Amino acid sequence: MVHLFNAGPAKVPDTVLKQVQSEFLNFAGTGISIVEISHRSPEFTALLNESNANMREILEIPDNYQILWLAGGASGLFASLPLNLISSKDDVVDYIVTGTWSKNAAKEAENYTNVNYVVPIPSDFTGVPLDESMNFTSGAKYVYYCDNETVNGIEFPHTLKTDGTIICDMSSNFLTRPIEVSKYGAIFAGVQKNVAPAGLAVLIIRDDLISTERLHPVPKVWDFKLQAAGNSCVNTPNVFSMYVTNLVLKHLMENGGLKRFCELSTQKSSILYNVIDNSNGFYSCKIEKDSRSRMNVTFNLTTKELEAEFVKKAADVKIEGVKGHRSVGGIRASLYNAVSLDSVNFLADFMKSFQKDHE
Amino acid sequence: MVHLFNAGPAKVPDTVLKQVQSEFLNFAGTGISIVEISHRSPEFTALLNESNANMREILEIPDNYQILWLAGGASGLFASLPLNLISSKDDVVDYIVTGTWSKNAAKEAENYTNVNYVVPIPSDFTGVPLDESMNFTSGAKYVYYCDNETVNGIEFPHTLKTDGTIICDMSSNFLTRPIEVSKYGAIFAGVQKNVAPAGLAVLIIRDDLISTERLHPVPKVWDFKLQAAGNSCVNTPNVFSMYVTNLVLKHLMENGGLKRFCELSTQKSSILYNVIDNSNGFYSCKIEKDSRSRMNVTFNLTTKELEAEFVKKAADVKIEGVKGHRSVGGIRASLYNAVSLDSVNFLADFMKSFQKDHE
Ligand SMILES: Cc1ncc(COP(=O)(O)O)c(C=O)c1O
Ligand SMILES: Cc1ncc(COP(=O)(O)O)c(C=O)c1O
Repeated sequence: MVHLFNAGPAKVPDTVLKQVQSEFLNFAGTGISIVEISHRSPEFTALLNESNANMREILEIPDNYQILWLAGGASGLFASLPLNLISSKDDVVDYIVTGTWSKNAAKEAENYTNVNYVVPIPSDFTGVPLDESMNFTSGAKYVYYCDNETVNGIEFPHTLKTDGTIICDMSSNFLTRPIEVSKYGAIFAGVQKNVAPAGLAVLIIRDDLISTERLHPVPKVWDFKLQAAGNSCVNTPNVFSMYVTNLVLKHLMENGGLKRFCELSTQKSSILYNVIDNSNGFYSCKIEKDSRSRMNVTFNLTTKELEAEFVKKAADVKIEGVKGHRSVGGIRASLYNAVSLDSVNFLADFMKSFQKDHE
Repeated sequence: MVHLFNAGPAKVPDTVLKQVQSEFLNFAGTGISIVEISHRSPEFTALLNESNANMREILEIPDNYQILWLAGGASGLFASLPLNLISSKDDVVDYIVTGTWSKNAAKEAENYTNVNYVVPIPSDFTGVPLDESMNFTSGAKYVYYCDNETVNGIEFPHTLKTDGTIICDMSSNFLTRPIEVSKYGAIFAGVQKNVAPAGLAVLIIRDDLISTERLHPVPKVWDFKLQAAGNSCVNTPNVFSMYVTNLVLKHLMENGGLKRFCELSTQKSSILYNVIDNSNGFYSCKIEKDSRSRMNVTFNLTTKELEAEFVKKAADVKIEGVKGHRSVGGIRASLYNAVSLDSVNFLADFMKSFQKDHE
């Protein structure tokens, strides 16, 4: 058995994988595969509507929000959000940069509008900025931030405090804690971390943001208004990923819902942070304690050689996916919903024994 | 057994479906599922490189063309092509509209540049225009057409004759006949017809078109230059669909290659056109003979009621997916590579017996 800590694409629940496999040649009694079914068939429409209803229930999404399923991943939304929301040359948007992904998003937005950096971009990312350091623009079109920075392992402990319209990238901590959707203008996520196979993003967006006039033309496949009217099927969507999403949402509901997965995420990440904090500096995490991610536990060993050895020895005992992002190095263990407590304990034990052997 | 004639998503070869199922929990000996594997893993990189090499071999793609795998479907390319290729406000592009999809593509291009319609848009689509009726713009940035109009059932009998840079939508007849790639500036296709599960498009594009200066900002995920440099992995791609594509390409090579599938496509479509032409007007195809599609055989019965009855009775004998596109009605049987001769003969027999019963 492999203990998989991939940052995304990532672990999918075993029971879901087995169900996909068992019904792969015959979806919903149709006699054909889910990958052959029409996105306009009654069977697929029923599945999509069920996913939307379950998503609404799980996140308690108010009626005045739409759920859209879009192509292009979370990075696609870095462009399609400003394209859909910017209505005038004079618009200003606020970006809070706390790591790789919010930095990329802000850069993409600069192509379309005036970007104000709410805090200066730090030379190294070690935590979320203090509330009092944030310099919001009054009248900003929206305030953008990334709830969990996957590369750096930085997570906001709570929803951003601002009166502005919040746009939040939750790609890597989506469906891992209860949130108050009404505090956000829009929430989005690539599904390939906590939900389903890559190639699909989900956007939860307040109605009034969809009806905006636009300064720039919006590609049809990314036109929120069209996709909302067309139930995310304006063109051929990623049917397979939407199908697995449907199964994962049910799995989540049947296994205790958001509260349970939130507890588990705290428990799982604490296990690893405890090993790090009790290692006398053999392992070190440079992220400030109150910004440490429950999803991506990032840490370093004392040398690059030791880190390479860690990854190699981990693979020997079937711990996979713990190499840090190529841009920052180090070690990263991603603990999404489908990663079991057993796997985390296994990794913790490995870390302790690796330390013993190499100290 | 279902005889599936879906227009897309569509039939996938049974042997491929079975292989996907059998190795779904353990991809390439990794012990994890293809849907969990990292797009930056050596296993996935090897798969992608193999697909590109096989694609190059199958289509005899010259070295000065890139193969890109993109999100957003073929409709995404309706926008991303002009976004990437238009370099000046004065650019003009030529569009030949022969059906639904080229019309949509031209409309999308109008957002970004000056579109010249090479022939007037006809009120009804019944064939490809005569060579001498085409009014090309000298110095046009490119000439765009759709090789096979899926909704209408109209296919160009041969590559367009023009000195311009051809951009060709081959979504629904991609990999169904040998082509001379060097005649095109770019070829693209949504994979969900002749290749793999929906949620992925392929673009084959000549190097010099990629290095163009751009008038408009290009979303990073659709930036041809970036995606070419990043082996189509600038952001997280649709790994699963790329994996099935890999299997289908091998299946195609092992089963006689393009020449064989081209022969089969002519054979399969002729069977149905013969039934139509010999039905004394019970069935009628309004497409001119030399523009009839080998892929999407469209036809009408004498009344809407009879067409509905046809679809219903077909379903009773497990013939699925033959309802015409909602925008045009009628009947459509899509005969992509994975649709067997047996299924086509079964449909032909059904058509004959339905006629006997309802004449
Ligand atoms: C927080 C966050 N945002 C955005 C992205 C980009 O996602 P995608 O690869 O789907 O474009 C990622 C990918 O890892 C991410 O972790
Ligand atoms: C010829 C052609 N072009 C473009 C498209 C649009 O493809 P997609 O749904 O992938 O955007 C289709 C879809 O059926 C098509 O048949």
